[in-house]
Amino acid sequence: MKVCRRETFNAAHRLFRPDWSDEKNKEVFGKCNNPNYHGHNYVLETWVEGDVDSETGFLIDLKVLKQLVKTEITQRFDHFNLNLDCKEFANLNPTSENISIVIWNILREKLDPKYKLTIKLWETENNICEYSGE
Amino acid sequence: MKVCRRETFNAAHRLFRPDWSDEKNKEVFGKCNNPNYHGHNYVLETWVEGDVDSETGFLIDLKVLKQLVKTEITQRFDHFNLNLDCKEFANLNPTSENISIVIWNILREKLDPKYKLTIKLWETENNICEYSGE
Amino acid sequence: MKVCRRETFNAAHRLFRPDWSDEKNKEVFGKCNNPNYHGHNYVLETWVEGDVDSETGFLIDLKVLKQLVKTEITQRFDHFNLNLDCKEFANLNPTSENISIVIWNILREKLDPKYKLTIKLWETENNICEYSGE
Amino acid sequence: MKVCRRETFNAAHRLFRPDWSDEKNKEVFGKCNNPNYHGHNYVLETWVEGDVDSETGFLIDLKVLKQLVKTEITQRFDHFNLNLDCKEFANLNPTSENISIVIWNILREKLDPKYKLTIKLWETENNICEYSGE
Amino acid sequence: MKVCRRETFNAAHRLFRPDWSDEKNKEVFGKCNNPNYHGHNYVLETWVEGDVDSETGFLIDLKVLKQLVKTEITQRFDHFNLNLDCKEFANLNPTSENISIVIWNILREKLDPKYKLTIKLWETENNICEYSGE
Amino acid sequence: MKVCRRETFNAAHRLFRPDWSDEKNKEVFGKCNNPNYHGHNYVLETWVEGDVDSETGFLIDLKVLKQLVKTEITQRFDHFNLNLDCKEFANLNPTSENISIVIWNILREKLDPKYKLTIKLWETENNICEYSGE
Repeated sequence: MKVCRRETFNAAHRLFRPDWSDEKNKEVFGKCNNPNYHGHNYVLETWVEGDVDSETGFLIDLKVLKQLVKTEITQRFDHFNLNLDCKEFANLNPTSENISIVIWNILREKLDPKYKLTIKLWETENNICEYSGE
Repeated sequence: MKVCRRETFNAAHRLFRPDWSDEKNKEVFGKCNNPNYHGHNYVLETWVEGDVDSETGFLIDLKVLKQLVKTEITQRFDHFNLNLDCKEFANLNPTSENISIVIWNILREKLDPKYKLTIKLWETENNICEYSGE
Repeated sequence: MKVCRRETFNAAHRLFRPDWSDEKNKEVFGKCNNPNYHGHNYVLETWVEGDVDSETGFLIDLKVLKQLVKTEITQRFDHFNLNLDCKEFANLNPTSENISIVIWNILREKLDPKYKLTIKLWETENNICEYSGE
Repeated sequence: MKVCRRETFNAAHRLFRPDWSDEKNKEVFGKCNNPNYHGHNYVLETWVEGDVDSETGFLIDLKVLKQLVKTEITQRFDHFNLNLDCKEFANLNPTSENISIVIWNILREKLDPKYKLTIKLWETENNICEYSGE
Repeated sequence: MKVCRRETFNAAHRLFRPDWSDEKNKEVFGKCNNPNYHGHNYVLETWVEGDVDSETGFLIDLKVLKQLVKTEITQRFDHFNLNLDCKEFANLNPTSENISIVIWNILREKLDPKYKLTIKLWETENNICEYSGE
Repeated sequence: MKVCRRETFNAAHRLFRPDWSDEKNKEVFGKCNNPNYHGHNYVLETWVEGDVDSETGFLIDLKVLKQLVKTEITQRFDHFNLNLDCKEFANLNPTSENISIVIWNILREKLDPKYKLTIKLWETENNICEYSGE
């Protein structure tokens, strides 16, 4: 059994490695490398897998999960520049894959270890990423 | 290989355990415990996993699956009050998790055992549940 | 120029006139008349028409409009039974049309008269209602 | 009769007036004023109103309208920073309202005057703007 | 006040004028002219404008509107080839504009003249057409 | 870790086996057997599973995956008749299941063997198919 809470946040980013030349950055990351940043409406699905509590009928209280995602993820990233404002990406290229890993690591630490956790992240309606910690 | 039929139904419910005090019900279930019920447009995805029939090119005829879901699930729950009208929830708290288990059990019994069955249920566009019988 | 804020709320209702016989209620309103109520995830678009403020570049601050809709509409109707919990429908059949009129009247009174107001309400993904006060 | 082509683009922006103090900018524009920019997946609907050509059955060839929107709007704004990279917003606060006016003006000039033009712009799935040149 | 019923149907078509040469057809209609047909999941919104009946709280009974659209439109066009199977397009190029006019004319004749009627037709998620009889 | 690129294409088809009688074809495939074809807006999600490259932060460059899907799938099937124009279905009934297998086989051959590949195909918003090569 799995349950999911969906939340959204907006952020600016650019794909960029400071240790690469501008030419190499541009060649590898194309228009996603624009030095002045571009941005996205990210959609985040947080999936939690586990057993249903026979008393409440909940796997996890979705009010609790919603609050956790808002406190730990939305407030951290919403209306910010991932490269400049968020220490998590100070030395990490904010690709969808890396953003998913960062989000997963943050939530994994806060979530009861009895649950399995999966993150699904839409960068656009056409670009999606899924991460389960492996 | 998996195929899916998506159907929708509307229903009222409240989260509530008759063996708990009103205080405890309110504390645990919050505004979902409103005694006069509230409701949802449920979206149900029914996923069937198996082998493709080499004659027809179908895993299962989706017209058949659609009819099964309509007869067994939509007609049973659509435009009803899950707590009051549906015997399945007379003694079962209608959380998304429990609704998914009930739906899965109903369809599992009607579906050829050669198929694996998974249910995905949207209570709102932000709250989702998935159940595969485990 | 028009701008819109989209919000959602969940509610139970039944279509019903207390001054009609049960037979007539059932004949006219069909399964929407189920005495135990059924429910919906309502989606509400609030459209405001007017001129753009040349200083801010806003027609209306959407943070303000969002807060207005949350305070006046979402908190009033979310997770309630429209027929039983909401005085607006004590003597008014909660069809989509009447819900739209009620919402429009509430917001109209709170909104600066310089703005034109239009409400768009989804009862389901297939049933929609739009009201501009005429 | 109206027809519409829907296109999307990603961009970074901040709400900001250089002639205001940082305090006033922050007070009026809130978290949308973050100096390091944030971003959106903009969805743009371009509606053209006119008569159907009795020969082709087209009001306007949507291949032509699609190409016009891609050349004039998507290529101009996609993966850019509206404030820094786009001369249209060098002295104009990139609110949804102002972006809609800018897009409308660009397309209006390129579109045959026999057509009426309306722009619908989604900043997020919940914030929408519509502009018809008035 | 306006209400809407949304329905869908699937159909094949090609853009083609029998009185034009193959070259001219190909030049004007591009890949939409493919002689072996291609197809779409059409989404149809039927908007009806009028006054709310103070007895029922309905502008029009959406069960009735749904049935009308199913009988007159869905059954006529769903799973057919518009060019070959549907007499309406025997001598009419099935562009979105012409399909909208055909649908509007069919429904207009069946609908009480006291209502204003508008049709909104999605050929794809990106190509939309709207027609109000003018 | 998995990433996904979503693309769409339009195509006509009919469900049909040339080695069956017309009666049997009609009995098994119903209105999907209409001899003049009908069509769909197919939505295709291409999911690639593997490890993230620590240099780029990409599992696979989505620009590359997008180009691969466009070149190999969209250009091959978009605006065509699957039964008549596409050699892949000359002797294969174009059910969603078989289309998914064909797409998977084409992409599998072009994709680095280090990646696991899954295809998700929407024939309509209600009929979905998923294939991972087993």
